[in-house]
Amino acid sequence: MVDVNSVDRWPTQSSPRTFVARRQRLQALLRGPALLASGWPRPRNFPHNCHPFRAESHFLYCLGRQLPGAALWIEPGQARLYATPPDPEARLWHGPEPTLEDLSRELELEVRPLSELGAAPEAATLAPQDPQAAEWLAARLGRSLHAEAPAPRDLELADALIELRLSHDAAGIDQMRQAAAVTVDAHCEGLRRTAPGLREARVRAAMESVIVGAGMTLAYPPIVTVEGQILHAQSHEHVLAAGDLLLADVGAETPEGWAADVTRTWPVSGQFSPTQRVLYQAVETAQKAACAAVRPGARYRDVHRLSQRALLQCLIDVGLFSGSLDSLLELHAVALFYPHGVGHLLGLDVHDMEDLGDRAGYAAGRSRQLDPSYRYLRLDRDLRPGMVVTIEPGFYQIPDALQAIDPGSPLDRALNRSRLAQFEDVRGIRIEDDVLVTETGHERLTGALPTDAAALEALLRA
Amino acid sequence: MVDVNSVDRWPTQSSPRTFVARRQRLQALLRGPALLASGWPRPRNFPHNCHPFRAESHFLYCLGRQLPGAALWIEPGQARLYATPPDPEARLWHGPEPTLEDLSRELELEVRPLSELGAAPEAATLAPQDPQAAEWLAARLGRSLHAEAPAPRDLELADALIELRLSHDAAGIDQMRQAAAVTVDAHCEGLRRTAPGLREARVRAAMESVIVGAGMTLAYPPIVTVEGQILHAQSHEHVLAAGDLLLADVGAETPEGWAADVTRTWPVSGQFSPTQRVLYQAVETAQKAACAAVRPGARYRDVHRLSQRALLQCLIDVGLFSGSLDSLLELHAVALFYPHGVGHLLGLDVHDMEDLGDRAGYAAGRSRQLDPSYRYLRLDRDLRPGMVVTIEPGFYQIPDALQAIDPGSPLDRALNRSRLAQFEDVRGIRIEDDVLVTETGHERLTGALPTDAAALEALLRA
Repeated sequence: MVDVNSVDRWPTQSSPRTFVARRQRLQALLRGPALLASGWPRPRNFPHNCHPFRAESHFLYCLGRQLPGAALWIEPGQARLYATPPDPEARLWHGPEPTLEDLSRELELEVRPLSELGAAPEAATLAPQDPQAAEWLAARLGRSLHAEAPAPRDLELADALIELRLSHDAAGIDQMRQAAAVTVDAHCEGLRRTAPGLREARVRAAMESVIVGAGMTLAYPPIVTVEGQILHAQSHEHVLAAGDLLLADVGAETPEGWAADVTRTWPVSGQFSPTQRVLYQAVETAQKAACAAVRPGARYRDVHRLSQRALLQCLIDVGLFSGSLDSLLELHAVALFYPHGVGHLLGLDVHDMEDLGDRAGYAAGRSRQLDPSYRYLRLDRDLRPGMVVTIEPGFYQIPDALQAIDPGSPLDRALNRSRLAQFEDVRGIRIEDDVLVTETGHERLTGALPTDAAALEALLRA
Repeated sequence: MVDVNSVDRWPTQSSPRTFVARRQRLQALLRGPALLASGWPRPRNFPHNCHPFRAESHFLYCLGRQLPGAALWIEPGQARLYATPPDPEARLWHGPEPTLEDLSRELELEVRPLSELGAAPEAATLAPQDPQAAEWLAARLGRSLHAEAPAPRDLELADALIELRLSHDAAGIDQMRQAAAVTVDAHCEGLRRTAPGLREARVRAAMESVIVGAGMTLAYPPIVTVEGQILHAQSHEHVLAAGDLLLADVGAETPEGWAADVTRTWPVSGQFSPTQRVLYQAVETAQKAACAAVRPGARYRDVHRLSQRALLQCLIDVGLFSGSLDSLLELHAVALFYPHGVGHLLGLDVHDMEDLGDRAGYAAGRSRQLDPSYRYLRLDRDLRPGMVVTIEPGFYQIPDALQAIDPGSPLDRALNRSRLAQFEDVRGIRIEDDVLVTETGHERLTGALPTDAAALEALLRA
């Protein structure tokens, strides 16, 4: 058991040379200038009460600092930061802040006031998520960023950043190790704090507390739910009952923006029921098979398929389906209980570079298949060293999906509903780890957190 | 000591009749139609990873629901909600959501799809904080919302909402009581968890955990700092030392959006040093004097002045200043150590209605004075029953302020710097409560949390 009170881990910052090197690699891929904005904090309900600021990821990748109101100008021969000088009036409220000269020294980069950046019609860019930054950029570039047909130079810039961000450098991997370690602690705390009679929110709060206490933020809105069949459930008001499974999908993000993304599912009572254990082990079997397949050169779609086959075989063995594995795969039988993809890219974003749509997740010449077995698969690339992917199969009893089966259809005939009824205490199970592709195979960055049912039970009793 | 593990409080929702009544009161003040937008969730780094959604406050006041992508149409004779119907594709990820028919039944209000709202050039509105909502509204109204000269009908709408929101109804007060109770628990937990050697972030996390675990959110970014002299310090990485004072300014917000705003300052060691105790008691004296002055008809600026006088008298008594109270007030001596206002309006926003600038905080005919004693005072109205204000004097040693004193000036001569040097273990103290103006006087909504130094020490030892 991790004693969270003894943890005095604090996030370390990557060295300025990391970002110098990243910018140089980007410069080598550019044919003309590019402008990347950081964004502005968004007021929550009045101008001085803002949501926590989180800079745009492409900016963070190149700068490593959560600087609001800044933009990186980068072209083949040089790079320059335009930043907002500290407001002297704000010192009373926020304390002394670095001047642009301080920033320049710390970042080893030329820094100028943001106001000095004029029209830049020749620059490529990537549309920021922040609407204010998008408007600001559009004015600088003299064009809309939401054009139906993206500008060719913007696509070239996107491809350059994808090329860099697909395989993480040592500093990025170190950041992800830090996020993973704190996330593992958070899950251990969640296990320790689970008890019948508490609300989901209490377990969520205990897990968040480990992350916030370690100087990190949440990489995404936490899912801590007894309704695991709702894949991204955001309600936390249910009171935990002894018979429930609790699904916790919670991940930390470092101050530099790097994410972890981890899911475990555990029994509120401290012990899986026999039916829960059977299906838990089915998901675990699929997760292990998929992890084992992660290596350089493996195609991620095949890893996904492998996880589907492994899970489906277990479901056949358990008696939920009758028929041959291959015929059931053709019927998309496994997608009935496991409708999503086996995982996705992980990096600065929990779905890394999803701001670029499938351009990052799908290799050139590949596109998303729309059938039920593949339509939610976010990644179809050949794996290479330095990539980090999640591996997260699941089993869910989703009422909509079960009701949508055509009566008398082959799928309907293959499904053993009376057997399924015996598993009514299983609403949703997911097991998710963060897996680094190494030169020779893979490494589970979240390997310190067990997946084994007995090991989870031991942590629940601790 | 509150045992947070025994707390099973959960936020209650105000009845639909509350909002019917609020809308009727607003209708009675309107001369033409108005349109209030709720806003959209803002992506954090890609479209499906959003900051937690928080609707615009004026919308929340009239509807009580955190509905993204909605707008309330309200005119003297009727009100109607335009809302975004649930996306069938999102059911897999977010579960079943209420249909517009469900909403209509629950809210006792006509509900139509947002897409049915066309041009509305005649409607008044208030500029939302959400830039996307502002753009959407501007398109509906056919005019900019950021005009230098606001439209008269918008100002009329602002004044109508200010009139309603200044004095809270029973449902609003009930919401604020709930937020205050959870906030008191959070501060008790912060006291209990404080120990030398921990980082500020750990205490912050423990406090947040109580709030999140109780089904609430943070009303504003928490301040938990040993650098109390930075009024809104946002760093949480300092390691607590035994000689430090820890200043915690943390408040909960209910799911309907109502805030608490509470500050306490306590010694990390568990016991105030003699110098800390003296200045702590000075701030407490000022805070008590200001609270005692809260009653219907009192002018808030006078409450502020009273707190300055009370604090200044203590500082004279302690030997930090020499001179008469009145002459020192004229020199703005108290603003050297207590530069901000005694408090502000509290309601749906932690600085209630600050989106409207000083229009809400300052009564007609009154405007902000720019001298050091008053320039940060956010409220100058005559108090009336149903108002909630914060009362939060403080004492801070702010290097900038001390360095800015003109050598040889009257203020310089009045300040006893050698005496001040004896108080170097006091960087910042603030004591803040939420105070409801009642028919006959006031009620501290946060009264369950002591301000007394000995009582805080007892909680620290618990």
